[in-house]
Amino acid sequence: LANLPEGFLSLNAFFDPASIAVIGATPNFTKPNGKPLELLLNYGYRGQVYPVNPHYEEIAGIRCYPDLKSIPGEVELAIIGVPARLTIPILEDCISKGVKVAIVFTSGFAEVDRQGKQLQQQLAALVKAGGLRLCGPNCMGLINNTNGVMATFATPVPAASLYTPRFFGFISQSGGFGAIIYEMMQNGGIGLNYFVNTGNEADADFTDFWAYMIADPATKIIGAYLEGVRDGQKFSIVAEKARAAAKPLLVLKAGRTRKGAQAALSHTSALAGSDRVYNAFFRQKNIVRVESIEEMVAFVKIFAEGRTPQGNKTAIVSVSGGVGVLLADKCEEAGLEIVGLDPVTSTRLAGILPFFAATGNPVDLTGQFLTEPDLFEKSLKILDQDPHVDVMVVLFALSQEYGERIAAGLVRAYQASKKTMIFICWNQKDEYQQYFEVFRQAGMAVFDEVDHAVRALGNYVAYAQHLALPLAPVLKPYLKTVAPKAEVTDLFVNNSQKMLSEYQAKQVLKAYHIPTTREELATSPWEAVKIAEKIGFPVALKIDSPDIAHKTEVGGVKLNLKSAAEVEAAYQEVMVTVARQQPEANLRGMLVQEMLVGGTELIVGVEQDVVFGPVLMFGLGGIFVEALADVSFRVLPIAASDAVAMVQEIRGYRILEGIRGRAKSDFNAIYDILLKVSQIALDFPDQIRGMDLNPLIVFKEGKGAKVADVLISLK
Amino acid sequence: LANLPEGFLSLNAFFDPASIAVIGATPNFTKPNGKPLELLLNYGYRGQVYPVNPHYEEIAGIRCYPDLKSIPGEVELAIIGVPARLTIPILEDCISKGVKVAIVFTSGFAEVDRQGKQLQQQLAALVKAGGLRLCGPNCMGLINNTNGVMATFATPVPAASLYTPRFFGFISQSGGFGAIIYEMMQNGGIGLNYFVNTGNEADADFTDFWAYMIADPATKIIGAYLEGVRDGQKFSIVAEKARAAAKPLLVLKAGRTRKGAQAALSHTSALAGSDRVYNAFFRQKNIVRVESIEEMVAFVKIFAEGRTPQGNKTAIVSVSGGVGVLLADKCEEAGLEIVGLDPVTSTRLAGILPFFAATGNPVDLTGQFLTEPDLFEKSLKILDQDPHVDVMVVLFALSQEYGERIAAGLVRAYQASKKTMIFICWNQKDEYQQYFEVFRQAGMAVFDEVDHAVRALGNYVAYAQHLALPLAPVLKPYLKTVAPKAEVTDLFVNNSQKMLSEYQAKQVLKAYHIPTTREELATSPWEAVKIAEKIGFPVALKIDSPDIAHKTEVGGVKLNLKSAAEVEAAYQEVMVTVARQQPEANLRGMLVQEMLVGGTELIVGVEQDVVFGPVLMFGLGGIFVEALADVSFRVLPIAASDAVAMVQEIRGYRILEGIRGRAKSDFNAIYDILLKVSQIALDFPDQIRGMDLNPLIVFKEGKGAKVADVLISLK
Repeated sequence: LANLPEGFLSLNAFFDPASIAVIGATPNFTKPNGKPLELLLNYGYRGQVYPVNPHYEEIAGIRCYPDLKSIPGEVELAIIGVPARLTIPILEDCISKGVKVAIVFTSGFAEVDRQGKQLQQQLAALVKAGGLRLCGPNCMGLINNTNGVMATFATPVPAASLYTPRFFGFISQSGGFGAIIYEMMQNGGIGLNYFVNTGNEADADFTDFWAYMIADPATKIIGAYLEGVRDGQKFSIVAEKARAAAKPLLVLKAGRTRKGAQAALSHTSALAGSDRVYNAFFRQKNIVRVESIEEMVAFVKIFAEGRTPQGNKTAIVSVSGGVGVLLADKCEEAGLEIVGLDPVTSTRLAGILPFFAATGNPVDLTGQFLTEPDLFEKSLKILDQDPHVDVMVVLFALSQEYGERIAAGLVRAYQASKKTMIFICWNQKDEYQQYFEVFRQAGMAVFDEVDHAVRALGNYVAYAQHLALPLAPVLKPYLKTVAPKAEVTDLFVNNSQKMLSEYQAKQVLKAYHIPTTREELATSPWEAVKIAEKIGFPVALKIDSPDIAHKTEVGGVKLNLKSAAEVEAAYQEVMVTVARQQPEANLRGMLVQEMLVGGTELIVGVEQDVVFGPVLMFGLGGIFVEALADVSFRVLPIAASDAVAMVQEIRGYRILEGIRGRAKSDFNAIYDILLKVSQIALDFPDQIRGMDLNPLIVFKEGKGAKVADVLISLK
Repeated sequence: LANLPEGFLSLNAFFDPASIAVIGATPNFTKPNGKPLELLLNYGYRGQVYPVNPHYEEIAGIRCYPDLKSIPGEVELAIIGVPARLTIPILEDCISKGVKVAIVFTSGFAEVDRQGKQLQQQLAALVKAGGLRLCGPNCMGLINNTNGVMATFATPVPAASLYTPRFFGFISQSGGFGAIIYEMMQNGGIGLNYFVNTGNEADADFTDFWAYMIADPATKIIGAYLEGVRDGQKFSIVAEKARAAAKPLLVLKAGRTRKGAQAALSHTSALAGSDRVYNAFFRQKNIVRVESIEEMVAFVKIFAEGRTPQGNKTAIVSVSGGVGVLLADKCEEAGLEIVGLDPVTSTRLAGILPFFAATGNPVDLTGQFLTEPDLFEKSLKILDQDPHVDVMVVLFALSQEYGERIAAGLVRAYQASKKTMIFICWNQKDEYQQYFEVFRQAGMAVFDEVDHAVRALGNYVAYAQHLALPLAPVLKPYLKTVAPKAEVTDLFVNNSQKMLSEYQAKQVLKAYHIPTTREELATSPWEAVKIAEKIGFPVALKIDSPDIAHKTEVGGVKLNLKSAAEVEAAYQEVMVTVARQQPEANLRGMLVQEMLVGGTELIVGVEQDVVFGPVLMFGLGGIFVEALADVSFRVLPIAASDAVAMVQEIRGYRILEGIRGRAKSDFNAIYDILLKVSQIALDFPDQIRGMDLNPLIVFKEGKGAKVADVLISLK
């Protein structure tokens, strides 16, 4: 645990305490404050256990202490199941005694009402000051299955040896659901090493335990039930550690739909954030979002094979053409490519399969496997030789006559290959259980259904591909040769405006070398004419004011002015109209601006997410795209690869690529602007509330892009 | 079966034959031609069974006949498992003997090669001429579980009494997959009455068996594994019967993705059609498309409750806030609305639940149910009283202490209610099986997972809602007061052009009272000027030719002409340019057309689908929408309700409704045009290949719509 930062090292006593005190212990083991004692005594915990309760001399043959200070030795972990009002004095005792970590089961804090919230704040302040790390309150505690630390009141399913692997740590923000997941994981054959329910997260939160498990050499993969993240930045830092350690985080996150999000808010005190931003962030950080517990179980089973997929090119083997087609559908939906087999492969398959079998992909062994049980092994070994195939999906069936031979052949084919494989058998009859045990021993990922298995495989392949990407440098030092920040600092610092005027905002963009329309600020009709003549007709006139966000709506914009006379008249008209409509507004003059011809309208924006802070948005402009909400997000800072990904991610990407004779857009100009806009937002985090480059016009390849209008609002 | 059309009545001998001959019978019951005899003898078939094979005197103690004609009595069903080359003579024997129906297991026909295809055509012609109905070839046959007709070589799972209901018929186009589905259905606790594998469908096809089951009083719901439909029109007629009979068809259809469709083509000889058209058709006809076998099983389980949902307003009850949120997400994704509870309901819930429980929707009983096992019953009975709640999703858990009380309470709550309910219990331990048996007896739909269950519930609710719609009159007699067909017949009949010119096509639209741009055909510059002056400037000029589909591409269009001089010059220029580019084209003159201002571009089209014939398409116009493929389809004819649905179905619907200060579009004008365009396509089915109204401009409510350009191509 050498590389564990100090803040996280402090959590180790949760998982490996030399001694545990159970405060409020009772001999009634069905109660939350009785259960831990029972579990610690029966699940092999080898450290010291101290029941604490003034009402008992001993419990279950162990000496019971009236209070913490009476305990002769050290106490590393305190499990606290006393009423809410008693938690503060007990935690004070813990601090006096030098207890390292405490778990508070007790409910009645922030999840209930304002009074509970205050009590929780008191409690948080206390443990922070006292250097005590806390899990809870309102939690089910935690389990370390490798050493019998059952610091929970959940009824765990029988332990250990049955389950593989023992390198999966699980963190749940929900207690009840956490317990269900724990049980389903074990039912699914997935053994956990750690299980934590973080509850109200008054001190140690989801991210802390996640960081602990990333640093822990015994944990290879981590699962989570997440309702919300409290600190996006901290989460982001830990996500980078997870990526560096190549330890996948599988997240089941509630609140995807509107109603779901409402329910999440009423259920926990975690902030919900925008689900679209969570999604963008997960994608950015290679966090795997799963849709169900079953999908999480499936991912862990495939991961446990220990075979990293080299790509998404998939071969399917089945015993029916119809099933093959269905599997192909599911695979493609999961992002797996049904690869065209090498001609050599098909020829070799034709050599072993009956004439009516399919030797393309999906490979269909037909019912022939019932009489030739070795067909699975043979065909898989042939596919293994195909250089185009990265992963294999095998739908097999056993038979009474040849079950053993089919099973043995599958195991041999699996062991002879290094490729990721998943196996699906719909009909896992009791009489075949011996074979499934053989598969389990061999480490094969065998499923009894398609949907979760194939989606998990798709997720795993995408995870591996993302991990294999070169870690593009993060944006921060992007513009190190110029120091634009200083140039525009005056505009931001000590600015009491609610936003910058368009002219001011354009100055900011120009300082960062973001191309904008040619334009100058005029303070009289005659000046406007002079500028227009310099720029060349036609021009646009736009009112320039830090008080007017929507210029068109107050009659502040005139487009396509073709002569000096038109410019002069327009200036007068706009000034009068706007002054009448917005008498309070500070009118800085009129922007005289070139009219852009051609190109495609884009929108680039920055907004503040409650959880993740500044978020970058990209989309096509115009009303159609707005109606379709065809935009992509990334949390700042972004890497150059994120800029590329967020452009490719929108559905309208094809338009930028050029369809129906349209020219290809200047993608580099877009990426450049995305990175520079991010830099502006990062340079002035305390000043900028939001930015909207709308429209940004992109021209054909090599011709760049220009910002036609921009709005920068201030905090 | 009185309402069974004669063509379908002929299939009854497949399911209820008084006598069966097994041709090619052998005492080796593991072989395909041995198996049926074994099954018929052991599964309770009460009719006559005649083995036929010249090599045996008797099989399994039954007299074996050398050939069909030696059989003394009548033979209603012949099961044929002889080599392909012998099938023709055997079928001739069948016809001579007066056999009513035959099943041919044998492979080696159209699924293999051209020779096989020819053999199959011979066979089809033979049975058609002889009045013999045929299932197969290349099929696994069929099963009637209610009378022991096991006319199959599949190894069936033990029969009957265990499973509920016995009113589910299943038809599979794939043999191997069909057998798997059969087994999974039974494993899922779903008993089938009929199972058919149609194989190559040389005679009786999927649609025939479907129609049979619709007419059959014993079948209430039908499932299908479908690779492709052969005859869209026949399928459509039967779909109407299914709707009239309120018997859902649940379709698992392969070939959704590109690769899947390719594999389907290589696997069967069924036509794949376009999956988008299948989807539109399924929606139109209220056919339920499921994504997996598990989802089909789940639908049947919910359907078996016998409770028609009155709407999609859903209440959730769970034992954990986190699970409630997850369920809410899944429900919303499945089209179920998480309804706001009546205040009275929440008050009543608050009266029985602990203070920290959630009494909104989702309702969270919390872990309190562990000590108060009656909370399920109480809260469900309260929700049952809520007039806003149509359906309920209940996530429950059992406990060792109170399992029996919880189970009994759930059953009572279920029985006291008439609302559709689904129950989910993740942890169905063996020790609780007695309770699950009680649930089964009570007819409750209980699941061990969420995804399939909730999707099936969503499907069932949508099915019931669609069924409750008034059956809007189908389009056919839409324009009975006018007889436009005669007016334009000359343009279509005996027309050797590949398409109509724009002017000609507009005449067709006008005849059907579809509004178009004001325009006239000019054959000289001077005439063009005269027309332009009548219409009013600005105008557009467009070359009019039945040989030029894309006028703009050959320089055949001039827009926004503002004066007589511009019109005259444009006329000359266009004529010269087009004549140079398309010297062969028949130039009928120039269309002088009003310029439309404002409105929203739409596209309406008709195309020919290989399976379903003429298909109507609707979408927003413009390149953005094209790139996003935001269009909807319906198979013709359509009902008025289909016109409404296909407009609402596109993602850009919000634009037509009016967002960002835009006016609401004239929806009635759109519906009207959709119906009229359909009518044109139906009036000239043998002439029209395709139509494209592009753009059709719709104006704000009350202002109608106008077709700016139209292309009608001919067969």
